[in-house]
Amino acid sequence: MKKTIAVLPGDGIGPEVTDAAVKVLQSIAMRYGHNFHLKHAAIGGTAIDQFESPLPQETIEVCEASDAILLGAVGGPKWDSQPSHMRPEKGLLTIRKHFDLFANLRPVKAVPALLSSSPLKEEVAKEVDMMIVRELTSGLYFGEPKRKSEKSAVDTLVYTREEIERIVNQSFEMARTRRGKVTSVDKANVLETSKLWREVVEERKKAYPDIEVEHMLVDSAAMKLITDPRSFDVVVTENMFGDILSDEASVITGSLGMLPSASIRSDGFGLYEPVHGSAPDIAGQNKANPSAAILSAAMMLKHSFGLHAEAAAIEAAVMSVLEDGYCTGDLEGEGKRVMSTNDFVAKVIEELERE
Amino acid sequence: MKKTIAVLPGDGIGPEVTDAAVKVLQSIAMRYGHNFHLKHAAIGGTAIDQFESPLPQETIEVCEASDAILLGAVGGPKWDSQPSHMRPEKGLLTIRKHFDLFANLRPVKAVPALLSSSPLKEEVAKEVDMMIVRELTSGLYFGEPKRKSEKSAVDTLVYTREEIERIVNQSFEMARTRRGKVTSVDKANVLETSKLWREVVEERKKAYPDIEVEHMLVDSAAMKLITDPRSFDVVVTENMFGDILSDEASVITGSLGMLPSASIRSDGFGLYEPVHGSAPDIAGQNKANPSAAILSAAMMLKHSFGLHAEAAAIEAAVMSVLEDGYCTGDLEGEGKRVMSTNDFVAKVIEELERE
Ligand SMILES: CC(C)[C@H](C(=O)O)[C@@H](O)C(=O)O
Ligand SMILES: CC(C)[C@H](C(=O)O)[C@@H](O)C(=O)O
Repeated sequence: MKKTIAVLPGDGIGPEVTDAAVKVLQSIAMRYGHNFHLKHAAIGGTAIDQFESPLPQETIEVCEASDAILLGAVGGPKWDSQPSHMRPEKGLLTIRKHFDLFANLRPVKAVPALLSSSPLKEEVAKEVDMMIVRELTSGLYFGEPKRKSEKSAVDTLVYTREEIERIVNQSFEMARTRRGKVTSVDKANVLETSKLWREVVEERKKAYPDIEVEHMLVDSAAMKLITDPRSFDVVVTENMFGDILSDEASVITGSLGMLPSASIRSDGFGLYEPVHGSAPDIAGQNKANPSAAILSAAMMLKHSFGLHAEAAAIEAAVMSVLEDGYCTGDLEGEGKRVMSTNDFVAKVIEELERE
Repeated sequence: MKKTIAVLPGDGIGPEVTDAAVKVLQSIAMRYGHNFHLKHAAIGGTAIDQFESPLPQETIEVCEASDAILLGAVGGPKWDSQPSHMRPEKGLLTIRKHFDLFANLRPVKAVPALLSSSPLKEEVAKEVDMMIVRELTSGLYFGEPKRKSEKSAVDTLVYTREEIERIVNQSFEMARTRRGKVTSVDKANVLETSKLWREVVEERKKAYPDIEVEHMLVDSAAMKLITDPRSFDVVVTENMFGDILSDEASVITGSLGMLPSASIRSDGFGLYEPVHGSAPDIAGQNKANPSAAILSAAMMLKHSFGLHAEAAAIEAAVMSVLEDGYCTGDLEGEGKRVMSTNDFVAKVIEELERE
């Protein structure tokens, strides 16, 4: 298979972890006879410094000419006091909207070897395996009017039926490949957008009689993610709720440094990035955990290219290295062997080549 | 001291736990020589059934003629399919707005005797002691336009500078009576209302040089509440974020059945209610944990009536009964002695009369 991949390393530890993922992709290409053409481009703070824009036109063109995007991380204190259009996050928001990447997929899966780093009791966090499906290109993030004066400020939460339908469909399709349950999260006792959301879910579920559907209020979901995280399979929700709940969910298993994400469009084009941030404090020290970036590359192979066996091989290799007790500094603990980013990637590739 | 208290038992376990709190208030009145005049009125589903309104005019009048309101809980499956203006929650939203109860105070405190029921590891949850200050009468809950059609729906997130100022001031004042730290939670990298919010916090903090202030994005706060809950003292945030984060925080110590809340106005008038819901499944069985309602009554004595010693006596009595191993069914566990609601209240009153 021949594919072009746009690689946007970004800021902080972004370049190191993206490098790691690229090495893994190259090993997969060799072994399975694929041709991955990698084109690097700038995004975030680095792009602001070099091109005076968090998402330069050139980067957009590189992405448009590609089959998928691999992103590292954006942001850092250096750019925190900039006006909004010159902030690293703006690059991320713009790329999502420009490419209509409406479905953000965030798997959260407990890794047995890492449960001891969870803030939750092991019996609560073990066997957690959920997929959060967050709407990513509408809602409070993009609704108009959006304005601010000395005296007041406004943001607008707006959803059209079509916007809700496509993300809800996505979640039902996802549930079919998993345990067949969808939890739709809203605030239907207060918000009009949530009432429409709930209506659409009720309507769409008729086309998926095999899927079990439950509605949950966002405040209850915020509790249940902690008290009973195993009860979730697929969780589908709007943009702002998804931002909060997916970050909440990302820490329950103790493996934040492991979590990948995909932001995809209906035709399979997508952007893949680790859930963790740019961690400027450890940038450039060959210390960062590259697992989330590597697993994001695996999600790319699966969701954008349909390469299921290759994706599964990467996942298995990372898990096996972790089960052997190897890890990066963030997962330090009893019986663990802490390695540098480079050494960890080398182990993963060794494992891949052995399989 | 002579005070009139409106008692709104509401639905489900509301009446039982409110009864318990009333008994405790009567014992306090006797012992400290106060005169609490209690007037009962209807709210929620019960009010819908009796008066075809979740907040009848008569109830508003009873509350207007009172110095504070004690509420049980509202809601239940019976009314879930009603149109919004005939739902129990509407009574709660209307009473908040009508009485301008803009500051919702939710203390979350780890109780050593209950840590074993926490989903978090004991070393993470122990010694947690935070106060969430949620803006309660503006934002997405009340902003206009708010509408829904077949094709789309809109909610509006609007805040004026004054609305932000008064809740931020409240949080700074609160921090002065505690450990002197305020965490202001917003989404300033995306929302205009959050930018105004952050500006106001920066401005107001000049008047409180003794208070340590930090800004945190709502997604980071959702993570940190789980990974490092002890790092919070006072948390101040807008209505919707406060709804989600305060419910998230309510489960981290394992003592949801213990948590009281206050919703107050600038002149000290306030509504006091347990954080837990109406729990229709155990209603009328003399099983509910009355602690949250009793501690809500204590908050009333402190915040609306300035009766600090009386409030402290109630808190001490509840804690001492728990430390002796007595509890209701929700807190069952090794070494615990499970009692009915009535017996638990009797123990608390016995303890109060011994002090
Ligand atoms: C950086 C920020 C704008 C972004 C978001 O809120 O969507 C991030 O928190 C995320 O979840 O990807
Ligand atoms: C019942 C509901 C409208 C209410 C809210 O969202 O404010 C409740 O969840 C709360 O937190 O008091």
